Amino acid sequence: MRMVDLIAKKRDGKSLTKNEIDFMIDGYTNDQIPDYQMSAMAMALYFQGMTTEERVNLTMAMVESGDQVDLSDIEGIKVDKHSTGGVGDTTTLILAPLVASVGVPVAKMSGRGLGHTGGTIDKLESIEGFQVELTSEQFNKLVNEQKVAVVGQSGNLTPADKKLYSLRDVTATVNSIPLIASSIMSKKIASGADAIVLDVKTGSGAFMKELEDAKELARAMVDIGNGAGRETIAVISDMNQPLGFAVGNALEVKEAIDTLQGKGPKDLHELCLTLGSQMVYLAKQAASIEEARQKLEEVIASGKALEKFKEFVESQGGDPSMVDQPSQLPQAKYVVDVKAKETGVVHEIIADEIGIAASMLGAGRMTKESEIDLAVGVVLQKKIGDNVTEGDTLVKVYSNQEDNNEVEQKIIEAYSIEQEEVNNQPLIYEIIH
Amino acid sequence: MRMVDLIAKKRDGKSLTKNEIDFMIDGYTNDQIPDYQMSAMAMALYFQGMTTEERVNLTMAMVESGDQVDLSDIEGIKVDKHSTGGVGDTTTLILAPLVASVGVPVAKMSGRGLGHTGGTIDKLESIEGFQVELTSEQFNKLVNEQKVAVVGQSGNLTPADKKLYSLRDVTATVNSIPLIASSIMSKKIASGADAIVLDVKTGSGAFMKELEDAKELARAMVDIGNGAGRETIAVISDMNQPLGFAVGNALEVKEAIDTLQGKGPKDLHELCLTLGSQMVYLAKQAASIEEARQKLEEVIASGKALEKFKEFVESQGGDPSMVDQPSQLPQAKYVVDVKAKETGVVHEIIADEIGIAASMLGAGRMTKESEIDLAVGVVLQKKIGDNVTEGDTLVKVYSNQEDNNEVEQKIIEAYSIEQEEVNNQPLIYEIIH
Repeated sequence: MRMVDLIAKKRDGKSLTKNEIDFMIDGYTNDQIPDYQMSAMAMALYFQGMTTEERVNLTMAMVESGDQVDLSDIEGIKVDKHSTGGVGDTTTLILAPLVASVGVPVAKMSGRGLGHTGGTIDKLESIEGFQVELTSEQFNKLVNEQKVAVVGQSGNLTPADKKLYSLRDVTATVNSIPLIASSIMSKKIASGADAIVLDVKTGSGAFMKELEDAKELARAMVDIGNGAGRETIAVISDMNQPLGFAVGNALEVKEAIDTLQGKGPKDLHELCLTLGSQMVYLAKQAASIEEARQKLEEVIASGKALEKFKEFVESQGGDPSMVDQPSQLPQAKYVVDVKAKETGVVHEIIADEIGIAASMLGAGRMTKESEIDLAVGVVLQKKIGDNVTEGDTLVKVYSNQEDNNEVEQKIIEAYSIEQEEVNNQPLIYEIIH
Repeated sequence: MRMVDLIAKKRDGKSLTKNEIDFMIDGYTNDQIPDYQMSAMAMALYFQGMTTEERVNLTMAMVESGDQVDLSDIEGIKVDKHSTGGVGDTTTLILAPLVASVGVPVAKMSGRGLGHTGGTIDKLESIEGFQVELTSEQFNKLVNEQKVAVVGQSGNLTPADKKLYSLRDVTATVNSIPLIASSIMSKKIASGADAIVLDVKTGSGAFMKELEDAKELARAMVDIGNGAGRETIAVISDMNQPLGFAVGNALEVKEAIDTLQGKGPKDLHELCLTLGSQMVYLAKQAASIEEARQKLEEVIASGKALEKFKEFVESQGGDPSMVDQPSQLPQAKYVVDVKAKETGVVHEIIADEIGIAASMLGAGRMTKESEIDLAVGVVLQKKIGDNVTEGDTLVKVYSNQEDNNEVEQKIIEAYSIEQEEVNNQPLIYEIIH
């Protein structure tokens, strides 16, 4: 078999067999196929696409290129959740204890990541004493005992995907649905998930700006998951403004605690119930989505969800008293109110700009080596559709620097305030099975 | 400027500017742009194509990537001829003295090449004493004095094209009209031509099997040439059977001598007059194609064309007496008649198979290091449309090996002899300005 013939085959719109895809991914992982052939293939794939069978085969070839997490010692159906990424996305912090409290095993492996804020791991580290380094045995035991644990990423998962992603990044082949879908799904499957709930964001603050593209990506991932024997459901949700109010590490922990008590922002609450119901249903802890949702509403109302969060924090070495006294979380030195300069209705909040503002405060990492300031960030006081009077606070800025002019400027620019009413924008566009 | 952005631009179907193309070709030639980016670009170009302006800019960037032959010391309009390649193509050997004898300066730089037979240089070396290594001064002087000289390729012409071609070869991006056209035209322009006549072959023995593809390539090259200020004309000619009768080095020299005397194969004669008229016209040695053709017919009839060939041979150190005594050319030890096994009409002669037969005898090079046997080859006795009786000689094989069974077998397989009459097949399909 020669790679040049496989490139020609794909270039001409034909499908690659499982053997051919294995040959390609093995060869590329082992440096037997050079970058220049793989990049020509990636561009041919960009134009010619892949069938569902090819996507499943590509995903599994990438899964098999490295280590695979073995969660078989954990009882029950392990459901993982993945978000395609947005601004102020605190859902994992809420969903982990929430679904665990109705009996779904949550064995979450999470990265630190680069972005406007840290990853789930960073956010949890704003709780004093919280430990994210666990042995595989400790991890499995915790999930079996109390249904939830979160651990930092380890092992050499999907090296083929890592290598291919770096190449795609410099050859203008990132933006290919089959390649994006296979990349995401290979990581989820290698992490040991039995079933997967995907939160595919769409809108100005998302990777997929257009709803149609988000739907296509969601469909692609669901088909790969199901084709690979992992039941998969995708929720397409809005990212035309930041999700919830808080963007920042400790600030999001606080918001997660509020939401677990039923006092969180409406959109975040609703999205967590939607995603959570799918997780509970896939884990077979409810016979229907409606029943699953009801169970989740009950554990929030009864305080069981919050109790599970405390247990989870305590079992990983964190101090659970901060749940009742959030002032124990890292606190910023300065709190600055960014005020509206006009009266009207909020029409738009450019999520990326709010993310950049949080990032300028030090909430996120620019490079792998950057230090994160866990205390800082922003908390929105007004969202799309809210009425604003000149002088009202739009956003509270939590900062450890005295001069926040640039950050304030960014925030002001992110808000569009108009005179007309704004049309209601859905939070959930579609659920794809 | 970043290569990744240029790839994305082309991927999205936009045109690259002259600056962008220069950046890309300079960077690639100087190893500043890696192969993996160039191959992704080549695949994007395969799908998205290039405008004529882009093709001209790509061609000129490749011309400027290396040495350029300076023919400015030679008087008159230097017209070069290029063939896209076929089997038994002896036209250069005939055209050089033919058009020179009506006053067109022929400053031909020629390669040895790989193929079924050697290149023009190899063929000329079957004439005892013929010298193809000339200094630039000797070369220019010869062309000024007697209008014709042929020299081996030297200098570092179009290194960008060489590097890109090697990459395309292993990334399934050879088959792109803009890239093929730019590659050919960059070499012609770097070789110093003022005007160019292209012989674009089509049919089973050609790179372009389909007439429509040949037309597209011809149009692309003509537009590049004219766009780069080199008047260019393309003749689309048939390659559904070998051209002329002879396929072999010395055998083709003998056929060229016959043709210069008006005694050559009909198709070869006609193609030389067609291509030659275009060359004479472009060199402004005739006011019309008709006048040009008449002039060429006159110099053949008068013996002037043959006389020019003798002068040309003598001036480059060859023995002109072989023109009158072709037995002085290298002679093969064995002549084998391949005989028809049935009676009927020749419907097809697969040109590639005849080429391979010649190559099996040792007429061509497999690798750059191979030795060529100048004496060997085949001479067709029957062509498409000819009546054949069982036992008639189809092909004479000139061989230096005793056992020619495999070669005979190849030849028998190349011929299709049917009972019905065959439709006349045009030799010249179209002339593209």
